[in-house]
Amino acid sequence: MPDALVIFTPSGKRGRFPIGTPLLQCARKLGVDIDSVCGGRGICGRCQITVAEGKFAKHGISSSTTSLGNLTKPEIRFKQRNGLKPGCRLSCHTILSGDIVIDVPASSQVHKQIVRKRPEARKIQMDPIIRLYYVEVEAATLDNPMGDFERLVMALKNQWRLDRSFEIDVQPLINLQSILKKKDRKVTVAIHCNKQIIKIWPGLHSNIYGIAFDIGSTTLAGHLCDLSTGDILATSGCMNPQIRFGEDLMSRVSYVLLNHNGQDELTSSIRSAVDNLILETSNEAGIEKDDILNLTFVGNPIMHHLLLGIDPSELGGAPFSLAVHSSITLKGSELKLKEIYSESRAYFLPCIAGHVGSDAAAVILSEGPHLKKEITLIVDVGTNAEIILGNKDHMLAASSPTGPAFEGAQITCGQRAAKGAIERVRIDSKTLETKLKIIGSEKWSDEQGFPKEVNDIKITGICGSGIIEALGEMYLAGILLADGTINGEIASSCKHVYQDGRTFSFKLWDGEPNIYITQNDVRAIQLAKAALYAGARLLMEKMRIDDIDQIILAGAFGSHIDPKYAMILGLIPDCNLSQVSSAGNAAGTGATIALLQHGARAEIEKEVVKIEKIETAIEPRFQTHFVDAMAIPHKTAPMTRLAAEVKLPKNRTSTPKRRKKSTNRENSEN
Amino acid sequence: MPDALVIFTPSGKRGRFPIGTPLLQCARKLGVDIDSVCGGRGICGRCQITVAEGKFAKHGISSSTTSLGNLTKPEIRFKQRNGLKPGCRLSCHTILSGDIVIDVPASSQVHKQIVRKRPEARKIQMDPIIRLYYVEVEAATLDNPMGDFERLVMALKNQWRLDRSFEIDVQPLINLQSILKKKDRKVTVAIHCNKQIIKIWPGLHSNIYGIAFDIGSTTLAGHLCDLSTGDILATSGCMNPQIRFGEDLMSRVSYVLLNHNGQDELTSSIRSAVDNLILETSNEAGIEKDDILNLTFVGNPIMHHLLLGIDPSELGGAPFSLAVHSSITLKGSELKLKEIYSESRAYFLPCIAGHVGSDAAAVILSEGPHLKKEITLIVDVGTNAEIILGNKDHMLAASSPTGPAFEGAQITCGQRAAKGAIERVRIDSKTLETKLKIIGSEKWSDEQGFPKEVNDIKITGICGSGIIEALGEMYLAGILLADGTINGEIASSCKHVYQDGRTFSFKLWDGEPNIYITQNDVRAIQLAKAALYAGARLLMEKMRIDDIDQIILAGAFGSHIDPKYAMILGLIPDCNLSQVSSAGNAAGTGATIALLQHGARAEIEKEVVKIEKIETAIEPRFQTHFVDAMAIPHKTAPMTRLAAEVKLPKNRTSTPKRRKKSTNRENSEN
Repeated sequence: MPDALVIFTPSGKRGRFPIGTPLLQCARKLGVDIDSVCGGRGICGRCQITVAEGKFAKHGISSSTTSLGNLTKPEIRFKQRNGLKPGCRLSCHTILSGDIVIDVPASSQVHKQIVRKRPEARKIQMDPIIRLYYVEVEAATLDNPMGDFERLVMALKNQWRLDRSFEIDVQPLINLQSILKKKDRKVTVAIHCNKQIIKIWPGLHSNIYGIAFDIGSTTLAGHLCDLSTGDILATSGCMNPQIRFGEDLMSRVSYVLLNHNGQDELTSSIRSAVDNLILETSNEAGIEKDDILNLTFVGNPIMHHLLLGIDPSELGGAPFSLAVHSSITLKGSELKLKEIYSESRAYFLPCIAGHVGSDAAAVILSEGPHLKKEITLIVDVGTNAEIILGNKDHMLAASSPTGPAFEGAQITCGQRAAKGAIERVRIDSKTLETKLKIIGSEKWSDEQGFPKEVNDIKITGICGSGIIEALGEMYLAGILLADGTINGEIASSCKHVYQDGRTFSFKLWDGEPNIYITQNDVRAIQLAKAALYAGARLLMEKMRIDDIDQIILAGAFGSHIDPKYAMILGLIPDCNLSQVSSAGNAAGTGATIALLQHGARAEIEKEVVKIEKIETAIEPRFQTHFVDAMAIPHKTAPMTRLAAEVKLPKNRTSTPKRRKKSTNRENSEN
Repeated sequence: MPDALVIFTPSGKRGRFPIGTPLLQCARKLGVDIDSVCGGRGICGRCQITVAEGKFAKHGISSSTTSLGNLTKPEIRFKQRNGLKPGCRLSCHTILSGDIVIDVPASSQVHKQIVRKRPEARKIQMDPIIRLYYVEVEAATLDNPMGDFERLVMALKNQWRLDRSFEIDVQPLINLQSILKKKDRKVTVAIHCNKQIIKIWPGLHSNIYGIAFDIGSTTLAGHLCDLSTGDILATSGCMNPQIRFGEDLMSRVSYVLLNHNGQDELTSSIRSAVDNLILETSNEAGIEKDDILNLTFVGNPIMHHLLLGIDPSELGGAPFSLAVHSSITLKGSELKLKEIYSESRAYFLPCIAGHVGSDAAAVILSEGPHLKKEITLIVDVGTNAEIILGNKDHMLAASSPTGPAFEGAQITCGQRAAKGAIERVRIDSKTLETKLKIIGSEKWSDEQGFPKEVNDIKITGICGSGIIEALGEMYLAGILLADGTINGEIASSCKHVYQDGRTFSFKLWDGEPNIYITQNDVRAIQLAKAALYAGARLLMEKMRIDDIDQIILAGAFGSHIDPKYAMILGLIPDCNLSQVSSAGNAAGTGATIALLQHGARAEIEKEVVKIEKIETAIEPRFQTHFVDAMAIPHKTAPMTRLAAEVKLPKNRTSTPKRRKKSTNRENSEN
């Protein structure tokens, strides 16, 4: 039989096949990545290709032999039922008729790459752990008493070349025969990890979904993804309902210790929140929630344990021992989730240490410091800051007790980042005039039209990133000294600085309400930033490096602060400002990667074991770094790179003052 | 260091080791099978050995160096706590001090052989799928944030050389840290299939159990076994509660077809019966039911499906397709059993075909026809007879629709085999006097003291085995002719034979009530036995053999009938009577083997696939054999081997009679 040359783009794979060979078959033999759920029966439409016109010359194929002929009958049928764009063909039913170049669009590739918003972000290659296979199962006959499950396995072998021993979950086993009956023994099966049949549908079923969950102490978020396209179809978030048992994690652990059924209550409460997010995201995306077959979870160790139903008491005190650090895969029913198919699979990413959870592992997966030669520092700031440092050769991780100041707690006018919170501050270093911006409004306060109230927005307080900018600008303007004192000497020349008991405060906004920053507020931020910086410094010391190539700020706080001010205040070590970036919700992204790309699970499992875990609490050097880091920016290392870009003030500290009697009196009156 | 020779009996394994080596360590290095749960810590007492005195000369060891020295401290401690028989030593704490011969008693072997009652039965070698390991888990420290699960796995690796990746079920994971706390991080873990940690106890835990279930249409039985000794600690049985949904299997399938929740009702009812048996057997044995970790199940395909929660409708009609024929392992919780530990494992033996269940597979496992050169025929008679024929080269299986006659149903005075049922019958071939025996009484009816009532026993009817003997004796005495007619010609000379409408009946017992056998009763038995024989004959024909080396009668009916009468009536083919035996409850035995000997599961799974399945319903030759087998014994083959042992009557058939008008009248009056 005469043969012809076929070249597939973009892979460039090529080969000669007999005229008349279906193109999908050529692609399979060449190892070209073309999707198919129906196995080449012309009904799923996943294997669509186009003729790569205009590319022939470069491949040495003459343009006279480029036609694929008319649509075949199955293609016409598919076009009538489902539509087929002009020029698109079903590769399973298109016949090779001469030398040709075929383009496989990304949408037809199984292992397509997902484009992420941040251009520097690592690429995701679609390869979910659950795949769909359409098969036609042979009917039972009197002379062959083979079971229907075994006939299904035979169909997978004969029709998909999946020649291995499969297992089947209870639900699909129980439903198997009734499903086989519905569409003439044509079924689609979902196979988990190339091994386990977890669901069966009658006829062709093309769409399954997964949800990546980021389980934070304060908020939960779920990202519902299409497991074939990788598209995020819906994202939903909610407050962690455990807040009523305790604002921070340690008070929740205390609740468990003090209440007989405390852990059960906390576990039920987080599970019902997850259930709600399953409902919300599936409603928003307009999909059947029973088609959600895979979940991934990341969170800090305490949330990780509570969701699994493990008592977190051991995590409440030294040595902070995890019940398990490895990854875990459970069924939806074992997690006792009510809104998800019982045989769905839930994957928990591995935890790194008792204080460094699977959320940190997910951040690594998202940002990929372990894949680069350059040294990356990642800080994910919450009540604890999780700090990761390293490159492809060596990685370290630690957590540092920053406390809640960065989240606006323990700050006099502080609040969570929400509408009405001050998030940007500028102080004119000459006039010491202040302007600011609030969340929900695009204008600066000195611009025309900046109102106290716009669209129900009213200045309500200052959030973490606002505090950082305010202190940074105060420092640049000389209002804040290097030792963290609000400079009382300029109170006479600047109306915003005023005496407030023994110390001075800085008024940021004069209105209803007044927003101001007290000396105590500065101290709280100093403690938090010193903890953060000391953690990073400790890891640098452990790694014997003084320079960092790249800094990534992760998490909600990290994505809101301006890196410049973070560096001016000494939250993070010296670095070129262009090399400091925000990764947004990197933990959620890592959970999504683990959902879409099966291989990423093994990757992070392997990586987590290799990471050197540093426990700041038992490192004497941490205390030294901490004390040194109380200063602004800090005493440890010169900020030479930052100084090249930002004009920093000369280090000035306050002169010690005698106690004034009046101050004592004010205090006692208070 | 000087070394010494140690020889272990009964294995005969020998080697030289440095003086001072613990004997258990020598045994391990030589691959000698010695049990241990505690891993050589001198606390479980499983590794006890004795000095094999008097055996030294033959092994070339002089008797001067045979002492093991005094008890060591751990041995003294064990002796005080648990007792230690004179001469017994703990091999883990006994030190090699010179050349010696050590005897490892069966009770100290992991893979000990179980002695079965029937000497011809195959041996069972203990090797349960779940094993216990005692470990001491390292405490967590601040500088090593490894999870406790991972520390447990490390302990298994270091203390038991189990260097592999383990998984853990949800329950033990959730309980891990609290259990570690209880006894100073000393725990015993139960590992399923060398892979999965399914339960953890604080400290040393030596005893776990399993139950082998035989799920019959009429009765269920459970055998509770100790998974270390193999002892059956309790056996309990009950009626199948599904009987209220239908006496026979097909009426239960009809119930499912006709009632919306029919299958759920039947499934719940059988599961609660299993739950009851778990309670009963564990109470009887006086053990904790939470220590029951393994269940095995055998049953016909319909019971198999119903217990699994699978709708058995497809098994109610051709082509009788099974949802699954392979073996299945589920958790207790997946089976929705309430009285068993949720993470226990339930193993369902494989089914052979739509009519030949896992009970037949279990019978094969028990009787081992596939291991022998000789050709074995096994018949297990219930409402369907399951027939297995073959040897190590080839095995065939079929089921044959015998109907319920052998179980006493459809017989005028028939009843189940229970107290008061006639089970033995003798007829004097000269005087035609009849004597009989009933279940519950040791005496024949012509013996002094045979009462109508003894200990509340009263003659109530005739059971299947009684019918077989009665007909066999009637045939030998000439009362029953070869074509199955009750010989009316002798009615005048024998008071027991009397006209009963158009035909004759035979009175077996003249009393309250009268027990008699009608011509219709004979016909029902003829139909049943013809089906059974035709099935066996068909398999012989398929295998191209005329002779069978051995016949095994299995099941309740099979163990009650006298093989001689089974052969006289032609239920089974010709065979030397000495080669016909009863296997008792072989299905239950097979389930027990699968429980105690892990490897037997793979063995039967492999065998079941190889068996040639014959569907009698579509074999034209089955009908031919069936018609031929209506005669007594049958027309097909001479009973030469039987005739050599039993004086058979000449074949006589009844002379056709004209219809009498009176008979017609009687019928119309009826």
